[in-house]
Amino acid sequence: MASLTQLFTSRDRIFYELFAQISETAVETAELLVELLHTFPERRDELMPEIVACESRGDEILHEIRARLNQTFVTPIDREDILELGSAFDDVIDFAEEAADYLGLYGIEAPMEEAENLATILLQATRQLALAVPCVRDFSDASEFTHEVHRLENEGDRTIRRAIAELFRHGVDPMVVIRWKDVYERLEQGIDACEHAADVIDEIIVKNA
Amino acid sequence: MASLTQLFTSRDRIFYELFAQISETAVETAELLVELLHTFPERRDELMPEIVACESRGDEILHEIRARLNQTFVTPIDREDILELGSAFDDVIDFAEEAADYLGLYGIEAPMEEAENLATILLQATRQLALAVPCVRDFSDASEFTHEVHRLENEGDRTIRRAIAELFRHGVDPMVVIRWKDVYERLEQGIDACEHAADVIDEIIVKNA
Amino acid sequence: MASLTQLFTSRDRIFYELFAQISETAVETAELLVELLHTFPERRDELMPEIVACESRGDEILHEIRARLNQTFVTPIDREDILELGSAFDDVIDFAEEAADYLGLYGIEAPMEEAENLATILLQATRQLALAVPCVRDFSDASEFTHEVHRLENEGDRTIRRAIAELFRHGVDPMVVIRWKDVYERLEQGIDACEHAADVIDEIIVKNA
Repeated sequence: MASLTQLFTSRDRIFYELFAQISETAVETAELLVELLHTFPERRDELMPEIVACESRGDEILHEIRARLNQTFVTPIDREDILELGSAFDDVIDFAEEAADYLGLYGIEAPMEEAENLATILLQATRQLALAVPCVRDFSDASEFTHEVHRLENEGDRTIRRAIAELFRHGVDPMVVIRWKDVYERLEQGIDACEHAADVIDEIIVKNA
Repeated sequence: MASLTQLFTSRDRIFYELFAQISETAVETAELLVELLHTFPERRDELMPEIVACESRGDEILHEIRARLNQTFVTPIDREDILELGSAFDDVIDFAEEAADYLGLYGIEAPMEEAENLATILLQATRQLALAVPCVRDFSDASEFTHEVHRLENEGDRTIRRAIAELFRHGVDPMVVIRWKDVYERLEQGIDACEHAADVIDEIIVKNA
Repeated sequence: MASLTQLFTSRDRIFYELFAQISETAVETAELLVELLHTFPERRDELMPEIVACESRGDEILHEIRARLNQTFVTPIDREDILELGSAFDDVIDFAEEAADYLGLYGIEAPMEEAENLATILLQATRQLALAVPCVRDFSDASEFTHEVHRLENEGDRTIRRAIAELFRHGVDPMVVIRWKDVYERLEQGIDACEHAADVIDEIIVKNA
């Protein structure tokens, strides 16, 4: 018969597994987005359904996190923090899917180099978060990874400002400006959501270490 | 003389009454917004002051929630949750009023069908929330209503993407695009605020059930 | 040898000092922004580096708040509240710096009067917050200052709506509309961040009074 400690451990494990799943889904979504932009619009019909599938999987994992929280009386870390970290990863995935879908909705015919740069920064940030997630399990220091997410967010901020300045310098067509500004802003929101996830990870570790 | 239990009960009741009031104000604001869009611009001068009055009432109820929290040492549910639910309803009302006012600020002459569809989704979501609020009182399962809010948010998301794609397909005038994109986004933020209120309601019930 | 009480007191003092520093940095950033807009574009090369320096200082103070939280087991007020107040001030500074930088990124040649009005409202709000911060130390009533921040936020809301209506009434060039709408929205987000800081201050005082 399992001891009480083992029961607790096996119950808690599910949250770490769900964090690992949703962080891997975020990495996969960002990889698909970079590939979509790199080959745009050639592989759109092939890649877009995969991105939408990632978005649904993110929703399902977040739903599972909520359902497990409802069944669990004692959680290894604060319920609010579990939910906030899950939601932050779900936001990353949602903004990446939106950025991808808006390329199509806006009838964009060729990608801009800066969008690919921003998506690559988003991908690097999701990879650092996937490395930070195992630290939540044993409350070991994740600052090596979370600092890198902050550095990437700063790089993304400079990249989007340069991209917007370019848009206004060369953009004679306001419709082009409206479209790209919107795509850039969704990529920026995705990167900001990565930074939020990094902050929640640091908070959880500090509170429980 | 009232027993201690009765005193607690009567003190607590005020928060449930204030939640009921602010959720009904959200329903009323959304009803007025649907009517405004349906008849736009004919009944603007009649309906807009009523929408502004709803917005002021929302502010007053939220102010009352804050004031009551300041006077109350033991609250039936976490203070943070009481404030967050009140704020979420206030956000719903604020975004609805903003969407209505911007129709006038932007000098819009005829409404677009998609805006009316989005406002109708917002109205349906506020009605589900008004049904969910009594569950907060006895911590009974509200998922029948909150699931419907999530479904409506997904429907709103599809509707706005279709509306934006239409705008870019037919929109030769960038000023028209800027105006409607902004109105659609405020309606979307109102629907997102409904989803946030649904999440807070679920959280409160789970934590206290 | 210091008594335990004194040790606690000296440890806690650091958070109040950091709040004072970051609120003064917010005031300074807003002062520079008003001056930048008032003289635009003449003093841009002189004032912009000072605004960027304020933004870096804000980041450093927030980083110091996080680092001190990590070293401190018992905090005078909830860790979450300390972090949220620091973040709110950092947001005020970030939006002010963004508004200033976008004037340059967008190649704006002359400022609009409404932008200067909005920046002045932002400055007044930061000054009220700087007066409210000392109340956090002894949990004395800050409502005289926080009410004024709410009043300023309402004034800012009316100002931005009037400014946007003007933009659409006279704006024949959609590129001009896109640029100014974006600058106005960043100023509005800065003022909203002031209101959020005021709410956190009120919450901290209520919880601890």
